[in-house]
Amino acid sequence: MKSDKLLILVTNDDGLEAKGIKELVNVVRPLGRVVVVAPSDPQSGMSHAITVKNPLRVKKMYEENDLVMYKCNGTPVDCVKIACNQLLKEKPGLLVAGINHGSNSSTSVFYSGTLGATLEGCINEIPSIGFSLLSLDSNADFTAAKSVAGRVISKVMENGLPRSVCLNVNIPNGYPDEIKGIRICRQNKGFWREEFDKRTDPMGKHYFWLTGYYHNSEPEADDTDEWALRNAYVSVVPIQTDLTAYTMLDNLRQWKL
Amino acid sequence: MKSDKLLILVTNDDGLEAKGIKELVNVVRPLGRVVVVAPSDPQSGMSHAITVKNPLRVKKMYEENDLVMYKCNGTPVDCVKIACNQLLKEKPGLLVAGINHGSNSSTSVFYSGTLGATLEGCINEIPSIGFSLLSLDSNADFTAAKSVAGRVISKVMENGLPRSVCLNVNIPNGYPDEIKGIRICRQNKGFWREEFDKRTDPMGKHYFWLTGYYHNSEPEADDTDEWALRNAYVSVVPIQTDLTAYTMLDNLRQWKL
Repeated sequence: MKSDKLLILVTNDDGLEAKGIKELVNVVRPLGRVVVVAPSDPQSGMSHAITVKNPLRVKKMYEENDLVMYKCNGTPVDCVKIACNQLLKEKPGLLVAGINHGSNSSTSVFYSGTLGATLEGCINEIPSIGFSLLSLDSNADFTAAKSVAGRVISKVMENGLPRSVCLNVNIPNGYPDEIKGIRICRQNKGFWREEFDKRTDPMGKHYFWLTGYYHNSEPEADDTDEWALRNAYVSVVPIQTDLTAYTMLDNLRQWKL
Repeated sequence: MKSDKLLILVTNDDGLEAKGIKELVNVVRPLGRVVVVAPSDPQSGMSHAITVKNPLRVKKMYEENDLVMYKCNGTPVDCVKIACNQLLKEKPGLLVAGINHGSNSSTSVFYSGTLGATLEGCINEIPSIGFSLLSLDSNADFTAAKSVAGRVISKVMENGLPRSVCLNVNIPNGYPDEIKGIRICRQNKGFWREEFDKRTDPMGKHYFWLTGYYHNSEPEADDTDEWALRNAYVSVVPIQTDLTAYTMLDNLRQWKL
């Protein structure tokens, strides 16, 4: 592959077969050399997990001019690590993850494998963007999402991103003309109220399925990603890999630990 | 159980059988009613992952006055969720995770199941603290770590923690008199340089083990957790569940997305 074109790493958490990643590849193909390293199987909810107890396997699935696709049996973060440290001879100039089937706004940033991969790219000092569409439909319409992704990627390539900051982009489900615009937001405060679905197996033993609903702790706020998405805007939240609560440092020092 | 005593939830990522969690239970037992919900098997590197593809099972392993212990086949975050939403009738007044066998300083906060559980407690508005000892030895000496944990817990109970902030506490490996003190720190900037160990299985197929070493991007800084630990101090980093890069918001708005 020629080395003067931008090297773009693409991954996701829904797996290499998901429609969302194929659509994202279509968005970035005109922009440079594209390497896809995605999970063999769906890895939703895998967050920033890495595989330490089992070996990783990688298989090249497709190769043509300026596009190579691999599947990996690990997590989304494993995919980024094995791409950057084993498969690629140079650091990618851009990492894009998604397009996720389902929202990754607010606190979901913590559980999402797509955002785990995005943050991992950022930790490795690669400009990184995670994209999610608010539809769990495996055959969702990505027309609007692709348009948004193209626009956000071109702006990132134009402006760059500071080290330790990446973007969490969520796109409402709907036709392009139903989307009102793009909002720069902060992460909404909230949490998932789990309602475990308790069942009994054929041997008489109980087991639980994790289910639940999102509790918005600040429904009135109009500067959050939840507000934007509820009001038909795309949300763009700049997120950072430094978790330090700086405003708490002085307070803590007064505790005289 | 009596309801006037503090309800304390204990979890970890090394599993219910690990020495570290037993030592942590010993620290908190005098402080209230203790409920342990820990993974059945080691879950290191599981980050903030949740189990969505498989059902969860919980088994009560031990019960006596003011101490109940469960094991769960899920991740550390699953343990917190099933504790708070299924097993417990009231919200815990404190969550402690660990004591982890191995460091969770700097960027490792992202990969750690112990810190995943701590952040999950924080998301659920429970004062939460993660403890890690810088020794991977399964029979490590937790004397110093227990003393530190007791001190930090008592200070948290005295002062409280702001919503959306929890503590990441790392303790150097050594005798108590070798530890110089406790430092309030920020999270060090750095990343793991992976060196995948490539092997060939008996069928002639390649596979990889994830290995690597930590690259410190700011070795000169003296206000980080890495510096503290290298210099025989305990590091206490207040970490937050709001990932928004606030300093980037205005800049992004000027991009005219």
